Amino acid sequence: MKTSRLAIVGFGNVGQGLLQIIVDRSAQLAGQFGVEFKVVAVNDMRLGSVYHSQGLDHAALLNAAAAGDLAQMPAEQYGWSVQEMLSKADFDTLVEVSFTDLRTGEPALSYIRQALSAGKHAVTTNKGPIALDFHGLQALAQARHVQIGYEGTVMSGTPTLALGRKLLAAAGIQRVQGILNGTTNFILTRMETGESYAQALAGAQALGYAEADPTGDVEGFDTAGKVVILCSLLMGTKLTMSDVDRHGITSLTVNDIRSAQVEGKRWKLIGALERIDGKVSASVRPMLLPMQHPLASVGGPTNAITFTTELLGDVTLVGPGAGRRETGYALLTDLLAIHSAQA
Amino acid sequence: MKTSRLAIVGFGNVGQGLLQIIVDRSAQLAGQFGVEFKVVAVNDMRLGSVYHSQGLDHAALLNAAAAGDLAQMPAEQYGWSVQEMLSKADFDTLVEVSFTDLRTGEPALSYIRQALSAGKHAVTTNKGPIALDFHGLQALAQARHVQIGYEGTVMSGTPTLALGRKLLAAAGIQRVQGILNGTTNFILTRMETGESYAQALAGAQALGYAEADPTGDVEGFDTAGKVVILCSLLMGTKLTMSDVDRHGITSLTVNDIRSAQVEGKRWKLIGALERIDGKVSASVRPMLLPMQHPLASVGGPTNAITFTTELLGDVTLVGPGAGRRETGYALLTDLLAIHSAQA
Repeated sequence: MKTSRLAIVGFGNVGQGLLQIIVDRSAQLAGQFGVEFKVVAVNDMRLGSVYHSQGLDHAALLNAAAAGDLAQMPAEQYGWSVQEMLSKADFDTLVEVSFTDLRTGEPALSYIRQALSAGKHAVTTNKGPIALDFHGLQALAQARHVQIGYEGTVMSGTPTLALGRKLLAAAGIQRVQGILNGTTNFILTRMETGESYAQALAGAQALGYAEADPTGDVEGFDTAGKVVILCSLLMGTKLTMSDVDRHGITSLTVNDIRSAQVEGKRWKLIGALERIDGKVSASVRPMLLPMQHPLASVGGPTNAITFTTELLGDVTLVGPGAGRRETGYALLTDLLAIHSAQA
Repeated sequence: MKTSRLAIVGFGNVGQGLLQIIVDRSAQLAGQFGVEFKVVAVNDMRLGSVYHSQGLDHAALLNAAAAGDLAQMPAEQYGWSVQEMLSKADFDTLVEVSFTDLRTGEPALSYIRQALSAGKHAVTTNKGPIALDFHGLQALAQARHVQIGYEGTVMSGTPTLALGRKLLAAAGIQRVQGILNGTTNFILTRMETGESYAQALAGAQALGYAEADPTGDVEGFDTAGKVVILCSLLMGTKLTMSDVDRHGITSLTVNDIRSAQVEGKRWKLIGALERIDGKVSASVRPMLLPMQHPLASVGGPTNAITFTTELLGDVTLVGPGAGRRETGYALLTDLLAIHSAQA
């Protein structure tokens, strides 16, 4: 039985979701994958920082997080900064799930670099570092003989990147089109019932799909970040956010939606990348899809991606694009790829 | 650079499709996967049998197959039976793509057993052997320290089995529902345009989707075989064809289709397996799906499968279910899983 010692940076929904799965499935992880995960360190801006060389009590950790303060739980060290934690803690894998900044990637990017440089594996669902410096991080990981996992940066736990990078690796991916942002797809689906953009946005905010400032979702920045990641991972092409021809959904009116319905079509916010004459072009824009298009029938917060390949034609994957448990699963698959006895 | 020596049994569309891909992509296979595939032996009931210890000329092989006779091409040996070929040829991997018999699995089952027993790997798209004796073949392969590949037995090259077995291995698959037969889905899609069952079947036969005797497709035997395979591979449960509650589409009338449309629903032939209280139940039957169901919008000969999981909810994969190149790709992915330098 192999044991992996985890240091978690950012202990919000996703980090707690991962730990809950580790607690609930410990027997399966040991039996089926021959691995035990032990959280030894946690650092969260809001909840505080704890470390125990023998491993923290997972149940107590979840309770302390729910209570809003990690200081109340038994530990050897309290109040370490992330940098202190990464340099002093005895761990083998960083789980980086702090907040995302698509402009700088910080502070996550520095945390991941520090961990990789110290010979630790890193798994993350954080789009910033992967969108901005995947190739640099990959080179650093290879130089230190460690691995980096990032499945959750696109479509949460739906195994989108593994499908494209592993299972379709020899199929010749020519184009990728995706509904990669659940908030905007939820809004567009609600507008098909006659709601205005403002009403649908308010509904998304009430359900926790959209943030108070929805700009990142509705103006297509979130989707553009995922498109940049897909370009790096599936096309081997490094783009920046500004290379993506980006348009949001804020200009779509109820009339646009209604006239599309009359034509038997649907508006979807599509993130797309395509290789044409060796050059990769990338865009995010509302597209009017005929109902036969594999992405047209994907409604609500669900995400979906269509890989257009030379050998298989279109292959489409549909699944969740967010969620505490769903995104926690993405981290679990990354951890198993690194630590499973079968890996 | 690694070299793999292939012996192909059955050189129809699928075997030729694989070889065409190997010819077209040799540079990519060498560069990206570090492997060269060399076909040394081919045996086909109709075309004849050839062997060359140095490897057969791939282009000449495709031409001879197109011309209908392998005897005209340069080789060291002609006319070997499959048994002779498997015992005398110098090869490392059997590519078994002869005809499918879901009752006995023969002769493919014996060919695969002979190859595995002799310490050769085997890859196949043949449902019979995998549906009837997957567990026995797997045990034999493990005992001989070789591998068996079978991705193409369900949904051709669409990586259905790898998705379910590898990428969703930790997600807790509770139920699987699929449109696993393109012929029947094509017929049902045509009937939605007002065609009768007989007209739609004739159209499917004219396009080569349906055989002269369509029983295997329209009565659900083909789908049932795939359901048995999915039970073995995803639920670890061995069922027989007779354990599957099987119903075909022949009883569906244009009126059934029309009244479904009026309700905003669609009839689909669904192969399903579900784990309930530790017991797996399996069925093939026409189901009336609401349009929101992820399988409802899948039309024509396209296949699709929905995995209902504990951690991710529904994850759906849509892609081709047949085709010379598409099924050849399934064999290629199996071969790469065994022989790729990365594998």
